[in-house]
Amino acid sequence: MEISEIGEFGLIRRLTEGIQPQNPSTIKGVGDDCAVLSPAKDTETLVTTDLLMEGIHFDLTYVSLKLLGYKAAMVNISDIYAMNGTPRQMTVSLAISRKFAVEDIEDLYEGLRQACSKHGVDIVGGDTTSSVTGLAISITVIGEARREDVVYRNGAKPNDVICVSGNLGAAYMGLQLLEREKAVYNQQLKEAQAKGNKQEIERLQSIQPDFAGKEYLLERQLKPEARGDIVKALAEAGIKPTSMMDISDGLSSELMHICSQSHVGCRIYEERIPLDYETAVCAEEFNMNVTTCALNGGEDYELLFTVPLSQNDAVANLPDIKVIGYITEEQKGQILVCRDGNEFQLKAQGWNPLSKQ
Amino acid sequence: MEISEIGEFGLIRRLTEGIQPQNPSTIKGVGDDCAVLSPAKDTETLVTTDLLMEGIHFDLTYVSLKLLGYKAAMVNISDIYAMNGTPRQMTVSLAISRKFAVEDIEDLYEGLRQACSKHGVDIVGGDTTSSVTGLAISITVIGEARREDVVYRNGAKPNDVICVSGNLGAAYMGLQLLEREKAVYNQQLKEAQAKGNKQEIERLQSIQPDFAGKEYLLERQLKPEARGDIVKALAEAGIKPTSMMDISDGLSSELMHICSQSHVGCRIYEERIPLDYETAVCAEEFNMNVTTCALNGGEDYELLFTVPLSQNDAVANLPDIKVIGYITEEQKGQILVCRDGNEFQLKAQGWNPLSKQ
Repeated sequence: MEISEIGEFGLIRRLTEGIQPQNPSTIKGVGDDCAVLSPAKDTETLVTTDLLMEGIHFDLTYVSLKLLGYKAAMVNISDIYAMNGTPRQMTVSLAISRKFAVEDIEDLYEGLRQACSKHGVDIVGGDTTSSVTGLAISITVIGEARREDVVYRNGAKPNDVICVSGNLGAAYMGLQLLEREKAVYNQQLKEAQAKGNKQEIERLQSIQPDFAGKEYLLERQLKPEARGDIVKALAEAGIKPTSMMDISDGLSSELMHICSQSHVGCRIYEERIPLDYETAVCAEEFNMNVTTCALNGGEDYELLFTVPLSQNDAVANLPDIKVIGYITEEQKGQILVCRDGNEFQLKAQGWNPLSKQ
Repeated sequence: MEISEIGEFGLIRRLTEGIQPQNPSTIKGVGDDCAVLSPAKDTETLVTTDLLMEGIHFDLTYVSLKLLGYKAAMVNISDIYAMNGTPRQMTVSLAISRKFAVEDIEDLYEGLRQACSKHGVDIVGGDTTSSVTGLAISITVIGEARREDVVYRNGAKPNDVICVSGNLGAAYMGLQLLEREKAVYNQQLKEAQAKGNKQEIERLQSIQPDFAGKEYLLERQLKPEARGDIVKALAEAGIKPTSMMDISDGLSSELMHICSQSHVGCRIYEERIPLDYETAVCAEEFNMNVTTCALNGGEDYELLFTVPLSQNDAVANLPDIKVIGYITEEQKGQILVCRDGNEFQLKAQGWNPLSKQ
């Protein structure tokens, strides 16, 4: 169905039908000039926002709209956890070009709603409009945390231990796989079209790429999970990080943010950086250094945090958390100690959407 | 300066330099995973968001980036006032294509900051990224209101009087003027180019359109003002509207929202709809019905609200507020009474970005 058949208000009605707020703090969702929220007593309100543009942040040749919606929601939810907070509400703004049908946008919303429902988030508003080219998705997530629980990037102190959840570099390897398949496919299609080989064109258009054995890497790229479980585990263990952020641009880049905002240095050990077996195999296949992928790959949406040295044992005992180094005095710099004992200054080579690369 | 020279973080630093939070509720602005706000006791949090796309919502051939920033901020601030709240914080996300320089985005921010400073709003975060084509601006404004002060669209009751601030239709006439000048200019330029008339091309490129006598209409279109003054005046007069919204899509469309959400009808009088003299003159010039412009024009960002009949005199005495009719039982429909006594059903013909028009 063409979106123009039902217009803006018709589309909003279809998309938001049956949305029932789950949070007592959601007083009024979609349907007025503003959403109205009632923050719990003695909590602070956390706000994060992301703008995702087709052709820059996502490529619909290999991402379904449902997965895109899921990821778009998840990366914002992840920012709330990165402050040690609980995500509560979300607004969703979409600018939609003519190539999309009502059903496409419903798929996108399906993904959004799945991610929201997993983390107890209410969709409370947004904006739906048209676009000259491509799809734009702007998401804002609002969360809350008790005043004394909020964790910033600037609280790391010398001797704090540096921790990472999950493993790193897998999402980046997943992207490499998808990009490679796309390049191969486009090349084959171009050749078949040049030859006018109709049969081959049809064959190419019908086949699905074979990613057997690489499912984990693709999932990490296409369907990241915000680590609310880690935030919960830390709280249950009575551990409050001194600094925290989520890893969206790569470990190096994020660690440098914590160091510069906390006015400290750091020392991390290559051998301790958590890697999945598939990431290592795939990096080898691509002739890439797996540590570089883990340091600079980005999009892992794992949590990077520091805890006082006194809590080293407590944190090391928690599942899926790895201590990778410690915080030092600022003048000692930001150091990576390699397996061979060599030391390097960390560099932020993470994704920079406005750089020349 | 090209944006790629300084990258995302360099640009954010330049844009947010010197921003000092004005609100005690702004605990942490730009620079962490989330902004952190501390809502005042017993207040509710209001959230509104808009996504503006180049080629759909704005045309940079006749809007400067500074004015665009000002308007983008103002239309969101207006939504907070429409809930009877006070705007406090704003997040700004931009997707920027290569045609923009650092200075362009600084101009846009200058406009945003001007609007924010006028209404005491702190810029607390956002996202800055690239775009394949054109500019996308996503703004979220957060406000607050005491629990008992929030005004929704659904509280209008039969016999309430219907009020409008300022005057209507001027912003729409301003748009007509700009569109006409653009069409004339493009036609002249095309002809000069076809003839290879270099002198004429240069002349055309250097002249400024003459809008003498029409400044008010242009200002209404290009530099709308959110009516915080009306919200303040109502509060000072001890009047709490029973329903309220701002007029962004046209009086008809907004009044129908209030009626459908409040389950009421309405009766408004053509002769009472507030019009500026320039709007009437310009409508005549364009051979348009000025009432139609006022009903369906949109982008006035005036406030439409209802108050109990008992407060009719109190509200009518306030400056810049006009009583245009009253609320009826739902089954009486939504009626416009014309100057000649004829009655018509109101129709929502306001701007619909996803319709076929």
